[in-house]
Amino acid sequence: MTKKPLHFEQTLFPVEDDCLQVGGIPLTRLALRVEGSFYAYDRRLLTERVAHLRRNLPGKVHLHYAMKANPMPAVVQHLSSLVDGLDVASAGELKVALDAGVVPEEISFAGPGKTLRELESAVAAGIVINLESFREMEAVSEIGHRFGIRPRAAVRVNPDFELKSSGMKMGGGPKQFGVDAEQVPLMLQRLSKLDIEFRGFHIFSGSQNLNAQSIIEAQENAVRLGIRLAADAPVQVATLNIGGGFGIPYFPGETPLDLAPIGERMEVLLDLLQNELPGANLVIELGRYLVGEAGIYVTRIVDRKVSRGQVFLVTEGGLNHHLAASGNFGQVIRKNYPVAVGNRMQGEEREIASVVGPLCTPLDILADKMDLPKAEIGDLVVVFQSGAYGLTASPGAFLSHPGATEVLV
Amino acid sequence: MTKKPLHFEQTLFPVEDDCLQVGGIPLTRLALRVEGSFYAYDRRLLTERVAHLRRNLPGKVHLHYAMKANPMPAVVQHLSSLVDGLDVASAGELKVALDAGVVPEEISFAGPGKTLRELESAVAAGIVINLESFREMEAVSEIGHRFGIRPRAAVRVNPDFELKSSGMKMGGGPKQFGVDAEQVPLMLQRLSKLDIEFRGFHIFSGSQNLNAQSIIEAQENAVRLGIRLAADAPVQVATLNIGGGFGIPYFPGETPLDLAPIGERMEVLLDLLQNELPGANLVIELGRYLVGEAGIYVTRIVDRKVSRGQVFLVTEGGLNHHLAASGNFGQVIRKNYPVAVGNRMQGEEREIASVVGPLCTPLDILADKMDLPKAEIGDLVVVFQSGAYGLTASPGAFLSHPGATEVLV
Repeated sequence: MTKKPLHFEQTLFPVEDDCLQVGGIPLTRLALRVEGSFYAYDRRLLTERVAHLRRNLPGKVHLHYAMKANPMPAVVQHLSSLVDGLDVASAGELKVALDAGVVPEEISFAGPGKTLRELESAVAAGIVINLESFREMEAVSEIGHRFGIRPRAAVRVNPDFELKSSGMKMGGGPKQFGVDAEQVPLMLQRLSKLDIEFRGFHIFSGSQNLNAQSIIEAQENAVRLGIRLAADAPVQVATLNIGGGFGIPYFPGETPLDLAPIGERMEVLLDLLQNELPGANLVIELGRYLVGEAGIYVTRIVDRKVSRGQVFLVTEGGLNHHLAASGNFGQVIRKNYPVAVGNRMQGEEREIASVVGPLCTPLDILADKMDLPKAEIGDLVVVFQSGAYGLTASPGAFLSHPGATEVLV
Repeated sequence: MTKKPLHFEQTLFPVEDDCLQVGGIPLTRLALRVEGSFYAYDRRLLTERVAHLRRNLPGKVHLHYAMKANPMPAVVQHLSSLVDGLDVASAGELKVALDAGVVPEEISFAGPGKTLRELESAVAAGIVINLESFREMEAVSEIGHRFGIRPRAAVRVNPDFELKSSGMKMGGGPKQFGVDAEQVPLMLQRLSKLDIEFRGFHIFSGSQNLNAQSIIEAQENAVRLGIRLAADAPVQVATLNIGGGFGIPYFPGETPLDLAPIGERMEVLLDLLQNELPGANLVIELGRYLVGEAGIYVTRIVDRKVSRGQVFLVTEGGLNHHLAASGNFGQVIRKNYPVAVGNRMQGEEREIASVVGPLCTPLDILADKMDLPKAEIGDLVVVFQSGAYGLTASPGAFLSHPGATEVLV
């Protein structure tokens, strides 16, 4: 008999008196403090996650936070004191990063469709612009002249076939991101004639990967590609950003990524880099892995109904607050996120129930036929693994319901 | 040889000098008037769509607009002068409906997770509340007592097996919406003891259907179910709302719904209703069908790149403005919406190109390898069939890019 796969056990948030604790506060009390449905991020868990990375990865590796995973200003502020730099994806994120007091040299800006206005703002700020096309390179040069500021830039590379061997679709083929590896020498030739401070390369290698071996292969391929491309660089490479891709377990049967073998292999990569490109920093850029597990989404049950034998718990918020948990954001087959009832973690009775949001659409599901404690109106449904791509990745205005609040505790 | 299916030809918006016209204005000029990416809705097309329905459906049918499809206040205002009532899905939509000057009796409120505060607001407004559970019925009664206002209510029904025969999944089985048909008699028994003005039934029958025969079957089943349930009603049924479900063609191979047979059959249903429930109004409630084809999404090309032989047009806005067009809202397999280049509808050369948004995610696609006029930076990409479930169904804050504007012209 095959056993149904289970969600990886949630142990990051402690439970006391059958109630989930966030930042040392019982969830029931936090819910009284906050109006309506909310996301809660745990400051201690963010700090511990960075420490966990530092323990497992070589000390020389630079750690960047990719803000797009969670741009809440308080989260960015907290993380910016722990990591070595930030990656932003828009002028809006850039503002938050600068407001947090991060120095411009430690901010890089990636995105395939940067507008002229965004590029102007980035040049004025003095951050590192990851050039994604020849057009961006020429625009940045022109802006630099116009502003009398020497722009800082790196080249974002769309990796060539070599990265395919990792067994994951993480590069190669036609892409809107970056410049095809084989076009990079031509680009660097042109770049050397422009008044731009060249910083290095940004090589993206896929995302949400739970397989250490795949990540090791991708990192090794990225470092080797960077070294190869550096032969045509106008000046020494200061930074080689090999992206991230570290995943977190969402669905039944998934288990956490093992960092130890990645850390071991990175020691070798650092030696290689030191030999081939002395003085170059190795940067990894993580979003989801830093914040995803430190956050929960919380919404109150407003109705409990039994329809033809099936229990439905209807909550105040749904896909308008948490699209990913509804299965409508890049998932082909809907699977349940880990879901609990925060004020009765074990409960007295258990039952199979579906948790649905308040929207008039059958897409609005937070949990489909899960084994849950028997819950009542007023109880607090918790969706774990919600710290990344949660609120900002959701259609907040859909059906004009109240929005969700975010708190860092 | 099989021919690849094509998008149904777009003829609603005229073309002059190879430029799309919206509300009599060339798109290039409208784009100069509006800042950034935008949705444009055409007032004339909204008016014509209602007229088309009136021509094809019996005059006695009441036509309601389901605001959730597009709650832009100017659109609601315009439509409310043409239709017989509005359906709202939240207190937020209710406010817009009342601001538009619609009389409360002609507003109904459906939604499986109405909060106490929403119910209070609805009772105070005097609108018709579609009761979706026993809990809502008791809450509405309690609020009525507390406020000294007699609430108006209908019962939203989760249809029983009879609706399954339409060949579509449009009812039956366990659902979070409404009250199971077989529980309705018990509910009406209780309702008759409460101080609530009973108005009738709301029977939902699925959505986005392009098959007239399926709709006819569903409508007939809904009317027969309504008549059957009315036997237990405390007072005469004033309104039988049989939902909508009229679809519009989005994807290659889809063709518009033929209203004529639906209209013919509704005459028979009206006669049946008149015989069985004299004085009851038959209401159909349409969202997407009223507004979907009257709206376009417009975004400017900021970069044009060729990656390994494939052309990418990178636009200023993407799934942050139009999630549905990216294929991430309820679609299992991504298909292209009808997309054009608004300022060169035919163009001089054609090419196969992909249109992608500015976001750092491979999900951000507006058109995948479509046959388009050869476009340049600055050109205006148009996504047709975007008047419903567009901006409000999109994660506007994702990656902190500028939002999209909405205009009614």
